[in-house]
Amino acid sequence: MRIALGIEYDGRAFSGWQTQPHGNTVQDRLNQAISQIAGQDITTLAAGRTDAGVHAAMQVVHFDSQITRPLNAWVRGVNAHLPPEVAVVWAREVDEGFHARFSAFSRSYSYFLLSHPVRPCLLAGKVGWYHQPLDVEAMRQAAAVLLGSHDFSSFRAAECQAKSPVKNLQQLAISEEGGLIRFDLLADAFLHHMVRNIVGALVYVGKGSLTTADLEALLAAADRTRAPPTFMPDGLYLTGVGYPEQYQLPSQAEPARLALWR
Amino acid sequence: MRIALGIEYDGRAFSGWQTQPHGNTVQDRLNQAISQIAGQDITTLAAGRTDAGVHAAMQVVHFDSQITRPLNAWVRGVNAHLPPEVAVVWAREVDEGFHARFSAFSRSYSYFLLSHPVRPCLLAGKVGWYHQPLDVEAMRQAAAVLLGSHDFSSFRAAECQAKSPVKNLQQLAISEEGGLIRFDLLADAFLHHMVRNIVGALVYVGKGSLTTADLEALLAAADRTRAPPTFMPDGLYLTGVGYPEQYQLPSQAEPARLALWR
Repeated sequence: MRIALGIEYDGRAFSGWQTQPHGNTVQDRLNQAISQIAGQDITTLAAGRTDAGVHAAMQVVHFDSQITRPLNAWVRGVNAHLPPEVAVVWAREVDEGFHARFSAFSRSYSYFLLSHPVRPCLLAGKVGWYHQPLDVEAMRQAAAVLLGSHDFSSFRAAECQAKSPVKNLQQLAISEEGGLIRFDLLADAFLHHMVRNIVGALVYVGKGSLTTADLEALLAAADRTRAPPTFMPDGLYLTGVGYPEQYQLPSQAEPARLALWR
Repeated sequence: MRIALGIEYDGRAFSGWQTQPHGNTVQDRLNQAISQIAGQDITTLAAGRTDAGVHAAMQVVHFDSQITRPLNAWVRGVNAHLPPEVAVVWAREVDEGFHARFSAFSRSYSYFLLSHPVRPCLLAGKVGWYHQPLDVEAMRQAAAVLLGSHDFSSFRAAECQAKSPVKNLQQLAISEEGGLIRFDLLADAFLHHMVRNIVGALVYVGKGSLTTADLEALLAAADRTRAPPTFMPDGLYLTGVGYPEQYQLPSQAEPARLALWR
C-alpha cells in the first residue's frame, strides 16, 4: 500500500531534505523511523527538496509498504522514533497513481523577515533579519513584475537540477506587521534557491538599491550573475503542496503548528 | 549613571535568570557582557526572576556604571558579547530612584499552549503541549474566579521567597486560534511558578477534571498539595513590566520580536 505523510521540520537541525552519506538529513531520519515501524527498509519521496536551514510547516512525502498498519502507527509510531526537530503530522492511504513530487501541481512557501536594528533572539533561526527599515510598499510594487510565467534564471542557483527555468509564479504577497515582513509565494514549482534569491532582490528594492524597472530588467536578463545575493535560509518555510482533489490531502499546514500570534 | 535595559531571551539555553556558581544563567551572561563594555564589574538587577526554560520577550534590568557610554553601546556593544539566545533590545538612562524590581508595579506574562495530537516541532520549546482537545470556554469561565486580590498559596511553589502569598491578578485572558491557546496574565507581582500552576489547573478544567467550583475551592484552600501539577515552562514568556510613567520605559515587548503570524 502507498502512504502519504504530512511532515513538519526545523531545518536548522538537518543538512537539508535530501539523503546524504553522513545521514543527518530529514529524509535519512524519516526513512529510518518509518523502516522501524514497517519492519522493512523504506525510502520516502518528497514533494520538494529543501536546503539546510529551510523549514517545513508542511512537506508531503510518500512511500510504499508491504505491511499494513493502522494510519495512526504512521503518525504516533513513527514520531516515537524521530528526533524532536521533525514530526509526522498526518498520514493518508493513497492509490498507486499518487506521487508526492509528480502529482503536485503547486508549492507554497512563506518567508518571514525581521526588519529591526537588533538581531532576532526568540525568533533566531526562524526569521531572516535585516538591520535597517525597508520600504515595503516599494517591494510590493516591484514584486508584481515577477508574477506569471517567466524564465527565472536570474533567481536560480548554479546547482539547480530543474529541466526548465520557466516557472509560473501565481502569488507573491508581501505583508508587514510592526517590523516583521512576510512573503507568501505560490508557484507550480520553484527553482533551487528561487525564493531566497527573490527575497534577496526584494530586500535590495526595499533598501533603495534596486527599482521596479531594475527588477524587471534583471528578470528579463535571465542571468544569475547580475542579481543580488541569496538571502539567508532562516525565515523560509515550505507551507503547503497542492494535489488533485481526488487525493483529499490537506493543501496547507495548520497555522497553529507554525506560529504564535500577537 | 544608572541604565535600564530591555532584555529578550530564549529560556531553553539557560538555567533561569538568577546567577549561579556554574555561570550558565541569563544574569551571568549579561553581567559578563556588560562588564566588558563598561570596563568594570557590573551586576544587573531584574524586574523578576524567571525559571529554566521560561522565556522573556521583555525582561527589564538596571545597573550602575561609573563610565559613560552612548546608549547604543549598551545595546549593540553588549549584544556583540552575548550568545545568540539573549539580546539587549533597548537601553535608557534612568535616575537613581529607579529600581528594576522595586519600581515595577506590574508584570505581564503570556503562556502559549498547543492542543494537538502531535507534539510541537517547529514550535518545540516555545509552546506548552496538551495532546487532547480542551474546552476553552470552560477554562475562560473558571479563570474568572482567580481575578482580583487573593492568597495564591495553592499556586505557589514550595521554594517561593515572596513575603506575602497575596497578589492582585488584574488580567487572565484566554484566547484560542485553531488549536493554539493563549493565556495573558497581568498582576502586581507573581509567586514562584504561579503562572505555570494556574495554567496546569486550567488545563484540568479544560479536560473536564476540575469545575469552576473546584477551582474556587482550591483557591480558597490556599494549599498547594491539593492543586494539579505545575505545567511545563516551554510556553511561558515574560512579556512586559509596568513602571511609573516618569521613567518613560516601554511597558511591553515589540510583538514582531516574539511571534510570527498566520
